[in-house]
Amino acid sequence: MASTESYRSIIHLNGGTWLILALNLLWISAAQSFHVSRQFAPAQPPNPGLSYKTYYFNQKIDHFGFYEDATFKQRYLVSDCNWRKPAGPILFYTGNEGDITLFCNNTGFMWDVAEQLGAMLVFAEHRYYGESMPFGDLSYSDPKYLNYLTSEQALADFAVLIKFLKSSIEGAKDSPVIALGGSYGGMLAAWFRMKYPQVVVGALASSAPIWQFEDLVPCNTFYQTVTNDFKKSGPGCSESILNSWAAINHLSETGDGLQWLSDAFHLCSPLKTKEDVGNFKGWLIETWTNLAMVDYPYPANFLEPLPAWPIQVVCKFLRNPKSGEKELLQDIFQAVNVYYNYTGTAQCLNTSQTASGSLGDLGWTYQACTEMVMPFCSDGVNDMFEPHTWDFQAYSDDCYKQWGVRPRASWITTVYGGKNITSYSNIIFSNGGLDPWSAGGVKESLSDSLIAIMIPEGAHHLDLRSNNAYDPKSVLQARAMEVEYMKKWIQESRNN
Amino acid sequence: MASTESYRSIIHLNGGTWLILALNLLWISAAQSFHVSRQFAPAQPPNPGLSYKTYYFNQKIDHFGFYEDATFKQRYLVSDCNWRKPAGPILFYTGNEGDITLFCNNTGFMWDVAEQLGAMLVFAEHRYYGESMPFGDLSYSDPKYLNYLTSEQALADFAVLIKFLKSSIEGAKDSPVIALGGSYGGMLAAWFRMKYPQVVVGALASSAPIWQFEDLVPCNTFYQTVTNDFKKSGPGCSESILNSWAAINHLSETGDGLQWLSDAFHLCSPLKTKEDVGNFKGWLIETWTNLAMVDYPYPANFLEPLPAWPIQVVCKFLRNPKSGEKELLQDIFQAVNVYYNYTGTAQCLNTSQTASGSLGDLGWTYQACTEMVMPFCSDGVNDMFEPHTWDFQAYSDDCYKQWGVRPRASWITTVYGGKNITSYSNIIFSNGGLDPWSAGGVKESLSDSLIAIMIPEGAHHLDLRSNNAYDPKSVLQARAMEVEYMKKWIQESRNN
Repeated sequence: MASTESYRSIIHLNGGTWLILALNLLWISAAQSFHVSRQFAPAQPPNPGLSYKTYYFNQKIDHFGFYEDATFKQRYLVSDCNWRKPAGPILFYTGNEGDITLFCNNTGFMWDVAEQLGAMLVFAEHRYYGESMPFGDLSYSDPKYLNYLTSEQALADFAVLIKFLKSSIEGAKDSPVIALGGSYGGMLAAWFRMKYPQVVVGALASSAPIWQFEDLVPCNTFYQTVTNDFKKSGPGCSESILNSWAAINHLSETGDGLQWLSDAFHLCSPLKTKEDVGNFKGWLIETWTNLAMVDYPYPANFLEPLPAWPIQVVCKFLRNPKSGEKELLQDIFQAVNVYYNYTGTAQCLNTSQTASGSLGDLGWTYQACTEMVMPFCSDGVNDMFEPHTWDFQAYSDDCYKQWGVRPRASWITTVYGGKNITSYSNIIFSNGGLDPWSAGGVKESLSDSLIAIMIPEGAHHLDLRSNNAYDPKSVLQARAMEVEYMKKWIQESRNN
Repeated sequence: MASTESYRSIIHLNGGTWLILALNLLWISAAQSFHVSRQFAPAQPPNPGLSYKTYYFNQKIDHFGFYEDATFKQRYLVSDCNWRKPAGPILFYTGNEGDITLFCNNTGFMWDVAEQLGAMLVFAEHRYYGESMPFGDLSYSDPKYLNYLTSEQALADFAVLIKFLKSSIEGAKDSPVIALGGSYGGMLAAWFRMKYPQVVVGALASSAPIWQFEDLVPCNTFYQTVTNDFKKSGPGCSESILNSWAAINHLSETGDGLQWLSDAFHLCSPLKTKEDVGNFKGWLIETWTNLAMVDYPYPANFLEPLPAWPIQVVCKFLRNPKSGEKELLQDIFQAVNVYYNYTGTAQCLNTSQTASGSLGDLGWTYQACTEMVMPFCSDGVNDMFEPHTWDFQAYSDDCYKQWGVRPRASWITTVYGGKNITSYSNIIFSNGGLDPWSAGGVKESLSDSLIAIMIPEGAHHLDLRSNNAYDPKSVLQARAMEVEYMKKWIQESRNN
């Protein structure tokens, strides 16, 4: 049941121009927590078979036009065993790019607090993911069918669904609803509160990079954060990775070198072309990035089986940045092997994937090629990657080739307000200090009700995971604060 | 240059079921003020040729999808002669269903306050009206081309345009923007502030019936307001109109009766069928409704040349509600004739129109058949009309016949929040006590920054008209308050 959704976009290593890298915006952390929590924590491991029911709601395919009047079945899951009716709160997970059952089963925090809040849990699947396909099997077959895959349509789905739930579930009419989500789901939760404050009294947006757009944050912070994670985890570690690129480039110049690289990294498909080398380097970048996102304090086996604090383990192999290029790359292989082959069972390494399973990648690449245009760059000085600038035009051209659509770089900031969001209210933005996605997150409170919570020892939306014996204190405090704010919003809504 | 836009929708008098009537949501009041103000007030009569410049901006046809990536030219008008740059405020008229030059020339209030506020004026045309046709001459030729005629797309146009203006006009980067609009334009102004608070610091929504949807207000208040205007304007007046329907119905039963009616009302096309009679009655209803909307305290000649307080003049002919049916209907004709033939030049009366010119009717009927589903009803007891219930299904069927689309009755309340809008801020809702559209308006303040201003002697958005020597004190006070709130919003935005 391994699964990721990916911010993987087009890898385009051409003439030194680096487009968006293969970036996993993972909610794997949450999923992982489910497994881990069963090892360490006694609390509420949700049993999908028992604890929720699956429903389907007829949603309009197009909320913003009337020519396409057909509907599709949006899947949503409900767990009401802890719900205090009438008028107990509803915690509403704003599903992101993946099968909703995985979010449901793996967002341990919601399950952990349901009893305390007397809350109903609802997990709503995002259109074009899981079973919620607007045009069935045809949904991804043509750009015309993909036309309704946007965040605005997804938010409208959520609003219409909540209106339906509140009018149809006995005792729910006066239930305050709180939106929760992680990663892109966190962005949706925040935007949902911003655009539909009458529908949700507040939102918990965990690891939501709502500012990773246009020029709102420097494009290089993301990879600097990845780099810092490695820098802090062992001497020589980030320098080794930095130096590896020149070694790879040098060896790639000859056929023998390519053969050596292919053998040294136990690649399933040997490197042959320049494009292969580009993909190989992209795969390495994604590996380092994934490690930064899942740098959790306890062993986990979701993306790949990994030890506790996996970057520290990786860095044990990367202590000699100045050794010869072949020695250095053998170290790099050992490090990568921690990620891909911790159990020692892999026969070879496949550079076309960075997790043992994946989900939602395709949809996300479409979203990245339309609305979700996130500029990234690196300079090789403040980070451990090769210098790459952000080239929107090349990115756009690649999108057009892949999907027949062109991205609109400034739309998200226009529609959701960019940095100028102080007139909104009741949103918690939580971020992990280890998480590269914190680069685009809201890390300082903007008002009395737009609250930033930092979790210095946290990777990607650690707070949405179940409580765990190895949790750092900062995430326990974060979860406690989040519960307090949710209680406050619930109380305020009752006073109105 | 006479012009109205109309809430005219499908007249459907079938088996006692009355659908939406031909309801003019006129901004004529504002247009009218322009002419009148030149007679009575010395202040700033805007001269279109001198005072503004016309521009065109390339807007995406579809902001909410990427398959249709083409653009169209949105027209907008700018007057910056009073603008204090840098950072002087921008008053932005959120254009509604009509040619934007008419709004520009006729929203006297904006011109009157421009100097005082040091404001730039911008009037943005609503897509599918005036010159802003997404598909040129084809725009209205097929439902597929009309697909992008929605309020959400219009708001997105405004947001994108403002972003462009602030980035491209020297000195405008830090200019606070205030949205203003009347009638549907007022709804757009309010919704614009609600959905894009980062773009506009506040909104003046004049005579904006944002609650004339679903079951937010009783469906019969609108016609009760029309009735009250007539009731207050002369003894026997509303009773005469109430009694006229039975007289018409009785006479319509025979060919001779139809002929008599056609002659008595000097109709250009004699009544022959049941449908003709239905249209005739619809035309009368629209006439009474129009009179209620333009019941201004001074003569005006916009829709039709009219005297001051036209309903009082009309009611002079309607003092004998209990006279015989032919006498009664001859009185009704005299009353109607005030509206259509005050100058005595009309050769015959044309029941297919209720203003000497019209504009935007077609677009509005589409909008009424998609998003803008406004339930109306009457009972013949609390109002002076025949009893008619609101039948959504019949309405929907008619829309499908006319446009190939079906209306979604609950969408507007879902997307814009219905009555639950207290988490929004900085909106003035002004309403006139004589205006039937006040029925769906916000008439009591909802918070410190959601302000209702009532103008008891006001008809449809009187406050947006230029100052006039015959203005009642209440509208002068309303305008003064509106200016104070605008100053406050501007000041607050500068403090942030």
